[in-house]
Amino acid sequence: MEEHETCSERTVERQRDATNEDCLSELTKGRCPVNFPVAVVLPAAGSGERTGLSTPKQFCKILGRPLISYTIHAFERVFWIDSIVVVVAKESHDLMTDIIQKYNHTKVKIVEGGSTRHRSIFNGLLAFSEQGFGPKLQKPKVVIIHDAVRPFLEEDFLLKITLAANKQGASGAVRPLVSTVVAATTGGYLDHSLERARYRASEMPQGFIYDIIYQAYQHCSEAEFKFGTECLELALQHCGTSAVLIEGPSSLWKVTHKQDLASAEAVIKESLSQSACIITGECTETQNLSTWMKNGLMAEGMWVDAIPNIEQGMTLSTNRNLIKLSVNSPKSVEIEEFMKMCEETKDVLYPFVILWVYLNVSGQASFSQENDEASAIMTLAEDAQKRNIFLYCVRLSYSKDSTECERTMNKLCQITVALIRDRSAAFSGQMLYA
Amino acid sequence: MEEHETCSERTVERQRDATNEDCLSELTKGRCPVNFPVAVVLPAAGSGERTGLSTPKQFCKILGRPLISYTIHAFERVFWIDSIVVVVAKESHDLMTDIIQKYNHTKVKIVEGGSTRHRSIFNGLLAFSEQGFGPKLQKPKVVIIHDAVRPFLEEDFLLKITLAANKQGASGAVRPLVSTVVAATTGGYLDHSLERARYRASEMPQGFIYDIIYQAYQHCSEAEFKFGTECLELALQHCGTSAVLIEGPSSLWKVTHKQDLASAEAVIKESLSQSACIITGECTETQNLSTWMKNGLMAEGMWVDAIPNIEQGMTLSTNRNLIKLSVNSPKSVEIEEFMKMCEETKDVLYPFVILWVYLNVSGQASFSQENDEASAIMTLAEDAQKRNIFLYCVRLSYSKDSTECERTMNKLCQITVALIRDRSAAFSGQMLYA
Repeated sequence: MEEHETCSERTVERQRDATNEDCLSELTKGRCPVNFPVAVVLPAAGSGERTGLSTPKQFCKILGRPLISYTIHAFERVFWIDSIVVVVAKESHDLMTDIIQKYNHTKVKIVEGGSTRHRSIFNGLLAFSEQGFGPKLQKPKVVIIHDAVRPFLEEDFLLKITLAANKQGASGAVRPLVSTVVAATTGGYLDHSLERARYRASEMPQGFIYDIIYQAYQHCSEAEFKFGTECLELALQHCGTSAVLIEGPSSLWKVTHKQDLASAEAVIKESLSQSACIITGECTETQNLSTWMKNGLMAEGMWVDAIPNIEQGMTLSTNRNLIKLSVNSPKSVEIEEFMKMCEETKDVLYPFVILWVYLNVSGQASFSQENDEASAIMTLAEDAQKRNIFLYCVRLSYSKDSTECERTMNKLCQITVALIRDRSAAFSGQMLYA
Repeated sequence: MEEHETCSERTVERQRDATNEDCLSELTKGRCPVNFPVAVVLPAAGSGERTGLSTPKQFCKILGRPLISYTIHAFERVFWIDSIVVVVAKESHDLMTDIIQKYNHTKVKIVEGGSTRHRSIFNGLLAFSEQGFGPKLQKPKVVIIHDAVRPFLEEDFLLKITLAANKQGASGAVRPLVSTVVAATTGGYLDHSLERARYRASEMPQGFIYDIIYQAYQHCSEAEFKFGTECLELALQHCGTSAVLIEGPSSLWKVTHKQDLASAEAVIKESLSQSACIITGECTETQNLSTWMKNGLMAEGMWVDAIPNIEQGMTLSTNRNLIKLSVNSPKSVEIEEFMKMCEETKDVLYPFVILWVYLNVSGQASFSQENDEASAIMTLAEDAQKRNIFLYCVRLSYSKDSTECERTMNKLCQITVALIRDRSAAFSGQMLYA
């Protein structure tokens, strides 16, 4: 996920810590040009046949969290968006309720989907109208329609779409065509190809003045409800509103096929592994180690800072990964205590990594003793994972030889980057060696 | 990579071992309906601006191997394809030569690219003509044009394209549109949207009777050379040949943006991790362990068989990963010996995993002794990686308690699957714990 710029389009120095994104809106609240109610409709009633998976793709898990929850979060963090109507199939209602609870989504209302995409969107729009079922939501001036399977949304682009919709009645994201588009004869031969430069792929999000898109759907024919796919076309046909087309970033892509889930995971992993905080402790060895690691990890593109200890009352950034340094191997009770401290200072809705790195100075523990400790640490790690923490350990061989020392440090950085980027459940609780 | 079916379109029982793919063509040689010369032109002169990376995407490495090498391999393994002309930018000539040498590509000729896609393809076609530079290749009856950045090609689809081109003069892969296509007014407003069902995205590969596409390029205007993107359109305009459009599989997608590299990696990793062979040894403990592991891994979708030992003269499948079982920790010399045996029985152009799993029965080695061994194994692993082998070790805690034992086995399978799927360089040489 690329970091977004501010609501007011002022170029802020890019923040490496993804959490700060959440504060950006707050910071710029006073200057935001959105002074009218905005809501979102998120159709998520599709069955996702193209992935070839049994779970609809919006509910597929990425790092243990359903795709749709990432998309909802992308809207929820924007303070000028009031509510998000998620339209799901009847059979997904309970699942969606669970997701909302588990990930603490506060702006969401669930609405039941229809038999086609257009019917589902219309059901979503009805949630703001007297004609809908259940308690009516406040009618927005502008409604944003998006896809549940496009999780990578940036606030600045949402702002562009919203302001353009407010001004022109309708707006939509477009992207250059990746492939040439061809028309076939009925026999399956090439009839003609379109000149690529003259056309665009219509993507999401799209924005509408609520009254316009609501009216368009009210005039929608049965054939349009059944075969249509383009909301912008409805606004044009039924309300004469010609949408502004806005070139969107490539991050707007849609998870369509099975392999796209791997892409989405890679993007999310990248955003979660941008930064780490080293907890150095007080002694010279670990403070020297911290300096080494900091330089090594920054050279790998990670943003790193260091503090001596985690203290009560401290607030650690949501997505920040933690590297704890110690001399000699930690006992499982020490690790447990440290994890508790971390949890108190962080919002653990977001998965993060705790990596415990220790210098093996004494080095004479017997193997059998180590077996018991290894087993205890693994149990700890399994338990932590249920609370969204990935726990790993790395033991450093202690050498006075400078070449050997450099090799160890390089290996340590390589392992650290891999553990933080991959956050593999299979390796949680492992004691690795560098 | 999905496994492909046979050349003769007979449905062969799906082979789990990707290597057998290589043999399929051989098996069906006698029945193949391609009895005319076929060649490939692979334009790879683009700069890949859309990935936002400095390396053109066709040269980006996936598991250490450049993307283009996977694509070349997809053609090379098809016995009825005679030659592959790869068109690269002048500055990539040396790099391409190195790739051909390193990955043992035998059917490839390099040609220098032009300033646009069409010019590059034409340069490729000239390699078969008297007008080209350097020694002329045998002129094919049918030429397949493809993209270097679409590595997932199956033989059965190539066959369809080739036979259709031979019959109709031209053929091309198409896919349903993922997004609606819109036309904009000059002011940037929606003019109209296309009815999605009537259009298709034109993908690759495309096939042509050589004389037709060659003639089409000879009549190509400057404007077409500069702005055109569609070979099928040239055949239609200049030779009146209307191409057959053939619905292709979703695996034909094109690596376009940075996130697509992660998808491609996931697909390749999946294909490389489909099967494993367990080397059980002779004793009862490891043979029991083998039965457990086999069941566990097969439940995870991996195809697994077991043999007692690797013997000289044996041939192990190219992509098969190896799991070696032993009682007590292996010495680094043992591991080294085992790796040598493996290398003699395999084609190590393909990266594979060696996982050494041992039951820690004696369990009393001192920590410092283990440190020396750990360091020796890591050095071994670093060396092995240069030869395309990923070496990992797992130590099993030995317990008579059946619940504990089951937990250990589940963890072992989870670790095994993760190591074989991820093949992470960072963890090579590690001694993990289950």
